[in-house]
Amino acid sequence: MAPALNTVPFVSVEHMMRLVLAIGVERFLTELADFIAADFRRWESFDKTPRLAAHSVDGVIELMPTSDGTTYGFKYVNGHPKNIRSGRQTVAAFGVLADVGHGYPVLLTEMTILTALRTAATSALAAQYLAPPRARTMALIGNGAQAEFQALAFKALLGIDRLRLYDIDPAATAKCLRNLAGLGFTLQPCASIAAAVEGAEIVTTVTADKQNATILTDNLVGAGIHINGVGGDCPGKTELHPDVLRRCEIVVEYAPQTRIEGEIQQLPFDHPVTELWQVIAGRAPGRRDARQVTLFDSVGFAVEDFSALRYLRERLGTYPFFTELDLLADPDEPRDLFGMLLRAQARAAA
Amino acid sequence: MAPALNTVPFVSVEHMMRLVLAIGVERFLTELADFIAADFRRWESFDKTPRLAAHSVDGVIELMPTSDGTTYGFKYVNGHPKNIRSGRQTVAAFGVLADVGHGYPVLLTEMTILTALRTAATSALAAQYLAPPRARTMALIGNGAQAEFQALAFKALLGIDRLRLYDIDPAATAKCLRNLAGLGFTLQPCASIAAAVEGAEIVTTVTADKQNATILTDNLVGAGIHINGVGGDCPGKTELHPDVLRRCEIVVEYAPQTRIEGEIQQLPFDHPVTELWQVIAGRAPGRRDARQVTLFDSVGFAVEDFSALRYLRERLGTYPFFTELDLLADPDEPRDLFGMLLRAQARAAA
Repeated sequence: MAPALNTVPFVSVEHMMRLVLAIGVERFLTELADFIAADFRRWESFDKTPRLAAHSVDGVIELMPTSDGTTYGFKYVNGHPKNIRSGRQTVAAFGVLADVGHGYPVLLTEMTILTALRTAATSALAAQYLAPPRARTMALIGNGAQAEFQALAFKALLGIDRLRLYDIDPAATAKCLRNLAGLGFTLQPCASIAAAVEGAEIVTTVTADKQNATILTDNLVGAGIHINGVGGDCPGKTELHPDVLRRCEIVVEYAPQTRIEGEIQQLPFDHPVTELWQVIAGRAPGRRDARQVTLFDSVGFAVEDFSALRYLRERLGTYPFFTELDLLADPDEPRDLFGMLLRAQARAAA
Repeated sequence: MAPALNTVPFVSVEHMMRLVLAIGVERFLTELADFIAADFRRWESFDKTPRLAAHSVDGVIELMPTSDGTTYGFKYVNGHPKNIRSGRQTVAAFGVLADVGHGYPVLLTEMTILTALRTAATSALAAQYLAPPRARTMALIGNGAQAEFQALAFKALLGIDRLRLYDIDPAATAKCLRNLAGLGFTLQPCASIAAAVEGAEIVTTVTADKQNATILTDNLVGAGIHINGVGGDCPGKTELHPDVLRRCEIVVEYAPQTRIEGEIQQLPFDHPVTELWQVIAGRAPGRRDARQVTLFDSVGFAVEDFSALRYLRERLGTYPFFTELDLLADPDEPRDLFGMLLRAQARAAA
């Protein structure tokens, strides 16, 4: 029997959760980081376009496509800071992989959870090249939806086992402490940002407000630390004071996009930055000395989603957590689309 | 109970067929044309961008987004002429509507069938303004997947009841004759293009080869006819000889896109054309006299898909042919995405 041409494997939220739990969160993050690293090493083989964004008063809806010439992927993602008030996620997403040869989708999946995982995996991957060696302590500033994923990625990839947590809302910190209990961390809630960064070798900022905030001022940033800046990810939304940026070696995903969306939107357009793929591919140095302050200015790029979709598809071979979705019209004879309709009518009448 | 925030209504191919049959193909086409006309009348309220295309040797994958500031829509569509050989459609599509206010998708649907319907509805809508009054005879050149939809749209909107059919492949014509039998047409298969256009007041060209073909040469085009050119719809794919184009009053959907993709890719970039919305909104004349040769150079534009999605969503209120898809992560507390995973684990262990 010929394979069905009309259906597309679909991974629901429920199936994504079962898949992540079956693999284990830390193993999932580690394997996903390997896929991201492999794709970053062949960076030049990807079609790269800035995301296609539809901005409105309340937020943005974006399409993020990319292709390596064989496989095509895109993600639909929104960003609506006020969504919390209506019980919705600030960011929700779904994604598609397709075969470039025939153009049909080969995978449709939820990507809200998958995006949280790929963002964390990318952060930890970058930190492997940028953080001080043998770092064990991370400040986690912003204890919202992303926080636990960041913590576990840094544990899995770098061995971070001491967390210093701060959020403007103590309830967010309490949630984070509850969720991370028993997962192998020493957890320290802190009363201020200054207290949280004390003794931390890595500082992760992942706050959600859509505004030019100043989470880190210059006096808080000591020599030798690595800053993992995740929350400054769209125009008008930043977390670091420009003085901090000027002291950092700055690594970004894709400079044309980050100069618009990242922390470096606060700097002149020609401020020198390194792209992460260059570091991973050995074309640029990572951390050079113990006193250097490094910054990964993360905004999220389509290639990371592509890697995540590719990893997911590969793992579904072992863990079949998907259903087949009747998404594509498949007449017996390709030119007979209307005849398919007539036959459906005949079946209904029978 | 609060409405579920995690699910998105999904219209499968099976459900789309049942919906179309429940409404009736001709009524569906007529109502859909009304939605398209309404959106074309408010053309200036739409964000319009050329489609985002990923080209490859074998075809193209496109994302076609648009928004009216309240609702956002996009279509994923491929175009792969060689797909017929593997039993796949040349063109397959799916689409999404989303709420601009919170950014969540509100509808996911198959769009292979819906695209065939919206293309035909747009063609017939344009012909209402461009074809000779009281036309009854149409030549249908190219008898593939689109042909019957075009025929029925012209019957429903203009009263066309005599069809003269030609295809390079007699099997395609035979399929078309079979499918259209008993639907109220006088059907005349023809041995050549010249025979097909004889006596026709409207000539629809809807062939599929990806090449600069010459379906209509100058000597075949008599005074007063309307040409509905549907098959010239991507770079390097045209159906009409440039001499024909130079004799026509040309109407397009969105000039910046059509100059790249349509028949007019063969003309200088400043050749005068009228946009269909101008005609529908009364800002430009349609047909002016009995001898004029008119051409609707159709390539398909995102606003038509938006109208089709909007129409579909409206009709689902009466005909609930959809299921709810678990596409969006919906933790009890929006910031607690990781906790949702932990609770799924606890449920699985229980």
